[in-house]
Amino acid sequence: MNAQDRLIRAIDKAGNPTAMGLDTQIAHLPEEFLATGVDSNAEKSVAVLRYNAALLELMQGVIPCVKVQAAYYEQLGLQGMMAFSRTLKMARERGYVVIADVKRNDIGATSEAYANAYLAPGADFEADFITVNGYLGVDGVAPFVRLCERHGKGLYVLVKTSNPSSGQLQDRLLDTGTVYEAVADLVAEWGEGLVGEEGYSSIGAVVGATYPEQGAALRARMGKTPFLVPGYGAQGAGGADLGGCFGAGGKGAVVNASRSLLAAHQKAPNIPWQDAVMAEAVRMREDIMGAIRAQ
Amino acid sequence: MNAQDRLIRAIDKAGNPTAMGLDTQIAHLPEEFLATGVDSNAEKSVAVLRYNAALLELMQGVIPCVKVQAAYYEQLGLQGMMAFSRTLKMARERGYVVIADVKRNDIGATSEAYANAYLAPGADFEADFITVNGYLGVDGVAPFVRLCERHGKGLYVLVKTSNPSSGQLQDRLLDTGTVYEAVADLVAEWGEGLVGEEGYSSIGAVVGATYPEQGAALRARMGKTPFLVPGYGAQGAGGADLGGCFGAGGKGAVVNASRSLLAAHQKAPNIPWQDAVMAEAVRMREDIMGAIRAQ
Repeated sequence: MNAQDRLIRAIDKAGNPTAMGLDTQIAHLPEEFLATGVDSNAEKSVAVLRYNAALLELMQGVIPCVKVQAAYYEQLGLQGMMAFSRTLKMARERGYVVIADVKRNDIGATSEAYANAYLAPGADFEADFITVNGYLGVDGVAPFVRLCERHGKGLYVLVKTSNPSSGQLQDRLLDTGTVYEAVADLVAEWGEGLVGEEGYSSIGAVVGATYPEQGAALRARMGKTPFLVPGYGAQGAGGADLGGCFGAGGKGAVVNASRSLLAAHQKAPNIPWQDAVMAEAVRMREDIMGAIRAQ
Repeated sequence: MNAQDRLIRAIDKAGNPTAMGLDTQIAHLPEEFLATGVDSNAEKSVAVLRYNAALLELMQGVIPCVKVQAAYYEQLGLQGMMAFSRTLKMARERGYVVIADVKRNDIGATSEAYANAYLAPGADFEADFITVNGYLGVDGVAPFVRLCERHGKGLYVLVKTSNPSSGQLQDRLLDTGTVYEAVADLVAEWGEGLVGEEGYSSIGAVVGATYPEQGAALRARMGKTPFLVPGYGAQGAGGADLGGCFGAGGKGAVVNASRSLLAAHQKAPNIPWQDAVMAEAVRMREDIMGAIRAQ
């Protein structure tokens, strides 16, 4: 089945279009996960993995999707890569739709190697979706698209990112519109052959929640392209910024939150961390579902 | 010392502005490295590592720099990541200037994690330089630049890549010129504070050898920005295409070749693989030095 169909159905089932961002860092960990030490990379990796495991157990059935940010594991070296692999596996085994946020990009032959690393069944770093950067054009992206087709996987290509300086290059004007609109048109084109039963392609776009007007305009521009929407919560965006990213019936987007979920217990130190994280997950769900209903 | 000063002096000492691209794949291996089996990822990783070790021993003193392409190790999973880490370490221990070709990119906080993974002293994946993709603008690149300054490391930011479709986005026209020229101007700006004794910044640009006119124009546009020039050999570029990438005195660029070196023995099956690879390394050096002299 088309990867995006699987995601849309998982979102429907949970009634929740959100992804939990496992950008897990030592600074996020509740007290109990610090007890085994967090000095060496090995200790840090074990602590991160234990918190991820607890979060995945806690959120099962509530949040349908997780996004695992490779950078926070790579910075812990080889031990971190084992925690990355194990986290991806645990999440898939629990039935989450799993996005490996790796933003890989290269020339064709090399992109094929990256695609094998993340999209081939049985790979140590197998995910359902990965993020990619399209700066190298079609022959850098095509190997990823081919493996998506072969293995029922999906992509999210960076279009308009959530960070403050995303406009420095992405908002520059071409004769056809902005650079990010040109990338959007390419992404829509690359995904044309992979549209699923729910009406969305397996080839999606990353569109930051922090730019709501651009998000709504992109939604209108690329009707079959699903969005991965980062920037909710700690980066500043709220539900009201998101409505425009969703298509008809509230489909076609998944909204990621990382710090605001993982460190929710730090704002509620007098209750169990599980309750604090769950309360934030439910609040986020209601906030976003409210924005969809208000469309 | 500024990372680029170290590279320039290593190039001077060897009289050779080339990098050996350790994009090592099973298809490149001489017969003797296949004997221990290449079925599992573990076997493949060991075989790749043994060939890398042999190449690093063979080329010491002849080639001053190596570029290690992460994708070919990531596709071998956790075992591959160990081979990646070990290859970077072996190369640094032998005195090569080491570029980890990872093309990482993300929002600021996440880029800092990637920077820690590759530029922090003692990291499992420590290199002297890494490649990065600048699509997210300055706040995605600044954490890399900060770690370069702190630890005497360097970057090469993608400007004009060597692949056939690089123009699809990079050649699009803004009011100030092309997209890649706009990126070039940003890269030059980001590197202004890190210019070393040899006159080049630690913040460099990736400029494909396959676009010689653009390379020469970029050389004129960004006088203090050193170039990493891929695309020589198997991708089609030769020495005559490269002259324009070098600045005064033949400095300011390092040219990478991967397949044409690593698989040189396949074109000369009747001599020892070492002789074939060495002959290609010497031929490439003379080809490029000839282009520099003809400037």
